[in-house]
Amino acid sequence: LAELYAADGLFGRLVAAAPGPWRDYTEHEFVRGLGDGSLPRAAFQRYLIQDYLFLIHFSRAYGLAIYKTTDPVEMRAFQATLDAILNHEMALHIATSAEWGLSERDLADTPEHPANLAYTRFVLDCGLAGDLLDLAVALSPCVIGYAVIGGALAASAAAATPYRKWIDAYAGAEYREVAQSAAKLLDRLAARRGGAAREPELARLFAQACRLEASFWQIGLTG
Amino acid sequence: LAELYAADGLFGRLVAAAPGPWRDYTEHEFVRGLGDGSLPRAAFQRYLIQDYLFLIHFSRAYGLAIYKTTDPVEMRAFQATLDAILNHEMALHIATSAEWGLSERDLADTPEHPANLAYTRFVLDCGLAGDLLDLAVALSPCVIGYAVIGGALAASAAAATPYRKWIDAYAGAEYREVAQSAAKLLDRLAARRGGAAREPELARLFAQACRLEASFWQIGLTG
Amino acid sequence: LAELYAADGLFGRLVAAAPGPWRDYTEHEFVRGLGDGSLPRAAFQRYLIQDYLFLIHFSRAYGLAIYKTTDPVEMRAFQATLDAILNHEMALHIATSAEWGLSERDLADTPEHPANLAYTRFVLDCGLAGDLLDLAVALSPCVIGYAVIGGALAASAAAATPYRKWIDAYAGAEYREVAQSAAKLLDRLAARRGGAAREPELARLFAQACRLEASFWQIGLTG
Amino acid sequence: LAELYAADGLFGRLVAAAPGPWRDYTEHEFVRGLGDGSLPRAAFQRYLIQDYLFLIHFSRAYGLAIYKTTDPVEMRAFQATLDAILNHEMALHIATSAEWGLSERDLADTPEHPANLAYTRFVLDCGLAGDLLDLAVALSPCVIGYAVIGGALAASAAAATPYRKWIDAYAGAEYREVAQSAAKLLDRLAARRGGAAREPELARLFAQACRLEASFWQIGLTG
Repeated sequence: LAELYAADGLFGRLVAAAPGPWRDYTEHEFVRGLGDGSLPRAAFQRYLIQDYLFLIHFSRAYGLAIYKTTDPVEMRAFQATLDAILNHEMALHIATSAEWGLSERDLADTPEHPANLAYTRFVLDCGLAGDLLDLAVALSPCVIGYAVIGGALAASAAAATPYRKWIDAYAGAEYREVAQSAAKLLDRLAARRGGAAREPELARLFAQACRLEASFWQIGLTG
Repeated sequence: LAELYAADGLFGRLVAAAPGPWRDYTEHEFVRGLGDGSLPRAAFQRYLIQDYLFLIHFSRAYGLAIYKTTDPVEMRAFQATLDAILNHEMALHIATSAEWGLSERDLADTPEHPANLAYTRFVLDCGLAGDLLDLAVALSPCVIGYAVIGGALAASAAAATPYRKWIDAYAGAEYREVAQSAAKLLDRLAARRGGAAREPELARLFAQACRLEASFWQIGLTG
Repeated sequence: LAELYAADGLFGRLVAAAPGPWRDYTEHEFVRGLGDGSLPRAAFQRYLIQDYLFLIHFSRAYGLAIYKTTDPVEMRAFQATLDAILNHEMALHIATSAEWGLSERDLADTPEHPANLAYTRFVLDCGLAGDLLDLAVALSPCVIGYAVIGGALAASAAAATPYRKWIDAYAGAEYREVAQSAAKLLDRLAARRGGAAREPELARLFAQACRLEASFWQIGLTG
Repeated sequence: LAELYAADGLFGRLVAAAPGPWRDYTEHEFVRGLGDGSLPRAAFQRYLIQDYLFLIHFSRAYGLAIYKTTDPVEMRAFQATLDAILNHEMALHIATSAEWGLSERDLADTPEHPANLAYTRFVLDCGLAGDLLDLAVALSPCVIGYAVIGGALAASAAAATPYRKWIDAYAGAEYREVAQSAAKLLDRLAARRGGAAREPELARLFAQACRLEASFWQIGLTG
C-alpha cells in the first residue's frame, strides 16, 4: 500500500509541527467510538446531519480554490472534486442518512452548529485573506485526515461495529487516492508559493484547523 | 433620549423577526451577571481576552466594508470606525484589561476560542459571499446590540456591580451615536440593495449572528 | 424556436436600459466582419488568442459563483458550466486555433491584453464587491450576448464567410440552451436578491460590461 | 536624501526584473510632457478626472489590505493611508481639478476609462486571488513609482512647466516617506510570506502592473 503522504512533504511536516492538535483530532473519542462501536446512534445521527451541511460549505471552498488559480491543471483537479462532492457524495450522504433514519429534510432543515460553521468559515477566510496554499492547508486536516482516520480504524475496528461502512468508505482505495493527490497538491502549491519560508505560520493555521475538526466531532458527542 | 433605532427600520424589523435569538443574546446569563454583579471575575477576564481578539477581526470586517463600496460617504464612515477601533478602542481595551489583571501578552497570546472565531468568520463570509448589506446585517447584533444591552443595564444594574465601567461605556452618548449611525446606514444600504425583498434571508442571517453572539457570551461563563 | 430571453425578464430589461452599449457590442465592426467575411485573418487570430486567456478567468468567475451560493441547485449549474469550459471548450478552442494556424504555445504565452483583462477583472470584482446577482449580471453580456450574436449572424451571414463554424457554434441549439438557462438563472437570483429595486445600479453595471465586451472585439481589430 | 528604496530589497529586485515595463511606465511620453511642459492641457484634464476615479478604487485596495492581515501594526499603516486618501488627497484632488477648470461633477460623472478600470481591478483581483504580498506588489508601481517619477522630474523639469505643483507634490518629503514606508512594508511582507521563492511570479505581476500604469498615462494622451 503506497503511503498516504510523505513524512518529509508539507503535510508530514505540518503533522509533526502540531502533534497535540493532530492527535486530539484523529484519535478523538468520537473516532474511537466509531471503531469499537460504542458511539451512540444519536451521536452518529447528529454527525451525519452536520456533515451534510458541511459538504455545502466544503464545496464552496473548492469553488473558491478555482477562483484562486489560473493554472488549468489545478482548476481541473478542483473541478473534479466539486463534481465528486456535488454529483456523488451528496447523494451518497443522503442515502446513508436514510439508512440511519434521517430524511433529506432532517439534513437540510437543521441549522448549522456553531462548531461546524466555525471550521468551514475559518477555511474560507484563510482562503480569502491568504492565498491558495493557505486554503489548501486549512482543508488538509479534513481531506487527508479522513483517510488517515479511515485507514487506522480499518486496521483496528471491532468486527461488529455498526460503523463499518463509514470506515470502509474512508479506508478504501478510491478515497486514499483523493487524499494522496491532495498531499501532492500541497507540495506543488508550497513550491510555487514560498511554502518553506511560511511553515511557522502554516503550522499555526493547521493546528487551528485540527482543533476545529476536533470540535466538529464533539458536536456528535454533546450535540 | 433619541431612540437607538426605529422600530420600522430594517434593524427594528430584524429584531421583530428573530425574537428568540435576539432575547437569548441580549438577556444572556452573562449580561444579567454584568448587571447584578454576580458574574465571576474569571468569566469577565475570559471575555476580555476573547473580545480583544475579536476586535482584530472586527477591524478586518470594516476593511472589507471599504472594499465593498465605491461611495466616498460610506467609505469615510467605515474609515472613521476603523480609526476608532485601531487607534482608541484597542488601547482602551488593553488599559481595561490591565485593571482586571491581564497583561497585553495575555490578550495577544491566547488562541481564539472556536465560538469567537465562529462569529467573526461568519461575518466575514457573509460579507464576501453576499454584499455590503449582508455584511452590515451580520455586524449589527454586535454594533447596535451592545448599545441596547448597555442602555438596559444602565437602567437596571445594581449600584455595586463591579462592571459599572463596562456598562457606562456602552450606555454612554458616544456609543449610542455609533449605534444610531449604524442603524441608519442599514436603512441606506437596504434602500439601494433591494433590502425589502431580501428580508426573509436577512432575518435568517441576523438570527444566526445573534446565536453566535450568545455563544460568545457563553465563552465567558464556561471557558 | 423558443426565444433566448423574455423581454420582460431581467436580461430583457437590462438590454432595454442600455440600448447604446448593447448595440455597440452586439453589432460591433468585428461582429459584422464575422458575418460578411471581411474580418482579416490576423484579427480573428488575435481574438482567438485573447479568448483562450479569457476562458481561464471566465472559469474563475464560475468558481467564484459556487463560493457565493449555498444552494445545491445553483452550485450544480455552475459546476456543469465549469465542466463544459474546462473539459470541452478549452480543448475545442485549442483545436479551432490550430485550424487557424495557432499553436497551444501561442495561446498560453501571449500576455493578456489590457482590454481583455479589464473585462474579466471587472466581472470578478463585481462578484466580490457585490453579490451573486451582480456577478451574474456582469457575466450576462458574454454568456447570453454570444447567443444573440450567433443567432443574428446565422440569419444574415454571407454564404462564403470563413467564420461559419464560429457562427454555427454560438447559433446552435446547445449554446442556445446555455444562454436560455443563464437568462432564467438571472430571474431566479433577482427574485431572491431584491433585483427589482436594484435595477438602476444593475443597468449601469450591465452597460459597463457591454462597453468592456466591445473593447474586447476591438483588440481583434487593432491589436 | 535617503534613497527611496534599497536596490537589494524586493522593490529594487522587481524593478531590475522588469526593466522594459518599468521604463515604459516611468518614462512614458505623458511623464516627459509633465516635465518639459509639452503635455496638452486637455491631456492633463483627462488624467485628473480618471485619477479621481482611481483614488476610489485605490482606497478599496487599502480596505482589502486591512481585511487581509491580523497584525495591528500593518492594519494601522493601511488605516493611516486610507485616512490620507479619503480625508485629504480627495479634497486636494478636487481643489487641483478646480484650478484646471474641472468641477466635482466632472470628476464624479465621467465613466471609468477601461484602461483605468483595468489597473484597479487587476490590483484588487491580485489581492483576492493571491495574498497580501501579491496585493502590495500590484500596488507598488503606483505608490513607489510616483515618488520615483516625481523625484526624477523635480531634478529635470523645465522651469516654466505648468505642471510644477504636481511634480512638487510627488517629489516632496511627505510623499517620499509614504513611498519609503511602502518599500519597507514590501520587505516585511516578503519575509513572512515566502517572497524570495515567489519572485518569478511576483515579477510577472509587477511587470503587468507597470504595463497597466503605462496604459493609464495613455488615457491622458489619447482619451
